[in-house]
Amino acid sequence: MAKVPSAAISRLVTYLRILEDLEAAGVNRTSSEQLAEEAQVTAFQVRKDLSYFGSYGTRGVGYTVQVLRRELRQILGLNRRWGLCIVGMGRIGQALADYPGFSSTFELKGFFDIDPAKHHLSFGGIPVQGMEELPRAVAERHIELGLIAVPGQMAQSVADQLVESGIKGILNFAPVVLEVPKDVAVENVDFLAGLSRLSFFALNPKWREEMVG
Amino acid sequence: MAKVPSAAISRLVTYLRILEDLEAAGVNRTSSEQLAEEAQVTAFQVRKDLSYFGSYGTRGVGYTVQVLRRELRQILGLNRRWGLCIVGMGRIGQALADYPGFSSTFELKGFFDIDPAKHHLSFGGIPVQGMEELPRAVAERHIELGLIAVPGQMAQSVADQLVESGIKGILNFAPVVLEVPKDVAVENVDFLAGLSRLSFFALNPKWREEMVG
Repeated sequence: MAKVPSAAISRLVTYLRILEDLEAAGVNRTSSEQLAEEAQVTAFQVRKDLSYFGSYGTRGVGYTVQVLRRELRQILGLNRRWGLCIVGMGRIGQALADYPGFSSTFELKGFFDIDPAKHHLSFGGIPVQGMEELPRAVAERHIELGLIAVPGQMAQSVADQLVESGIKGILNFAPVVLEVPKDVAVENVDFLAGLSRLSFFALNPKWREEMVG
Repeated sequence: MAKVPSAAISRLVTYLRILEDLEAAGVNRTSSEQLAEEAQVTAFQVRKDLSYFGSYGTRGVGYTVQVLRRELRQILGLNRRWGLCIVGMGRIGQALADYPGFSSTFELKGFFDIDPAKHHLSFGGIPVQGMEELPRAVAERHIELGLIAVPGQMAQSVADQLVESGIKGILNFAPVVLEVPKDVAVENVDFLAGLSRLSFFALNPKWREEMVG
């Protein structure tokens, strides 16, 4: 496979959402031009991003919405189920545990916190447990992804424990850069970067309308 | 100005962080190659992203860390102060209000919630107020950016009220696409997109190491 820019994966996620909206609206066919307009990139970019993973669509005919949606879900690994756990059941962790928007792809299977006062809580029938229960829970419940919602100074230690437990990927809400082995994926949810982007766009509303990509 | 891809703004934010780290480490000079390696893009991409905004660095000599950092802060509008408010003082809003990582660029100046039970709370000495106080507070306290941390079904109505109050930009934590006038900037904090990326990278650890960009 050719080298894939990591930004291409973000764009695939965007294309998938557009396709889901189109399918929900009863639209059967689309084109790289339509996807590009919705995603605010060029049609060339859409075709290039898809080309990393195979040959999709027919020249002059475009894409079948349902087919391309299924292909993208497969590329992204969203056609399977992922077991998730949340570590850190403070305000962010609890808000995530109660979040109604998880698709059936992502299943919350465990909640962990070092604070015994949190161990009387449960979410969706699953009790919050101490960190010492993490390794066994990860193994027995087939938990593959961990969400870290602890304070910054505890995040690396939690990441280490998740890695030792055999987790494959971490979604990090703590404002620190985590060090993990190369075969463990990390994605950071970073609202300060969003705030910096907002600063630029709020100062440059005219430039914004002229932007591409 | 040439058309700027919106992804370039995200990369400028990344370059700025790298420069801040370099400066904190006492490094005086850097290069597009070094920035590229840290940001996981190509050196050509770094030079191109900077070229939208002016002429930086000297061929064969590179960049002065402190100078480029200052230039990037100016481009992004981070060399000024922004007044912020948070609407929705549930768990997410309260976690944001207590977040210790805001730089001096961003100043929390107001907190709003429709629930009167929240109006006895205060953060940093600023009380939580009702939504009817929003327009006056935005005007009198020079609040320019609004963080929306309300449930999805209320987010558009809150966005409308922020826009009417004269806000310039919105950081949206609600899982909905907001409709706002073209001169109002919106950035979405979207952890589900992060989870979809994580799904891909957890399935493809080898591809990940080969990735560029």
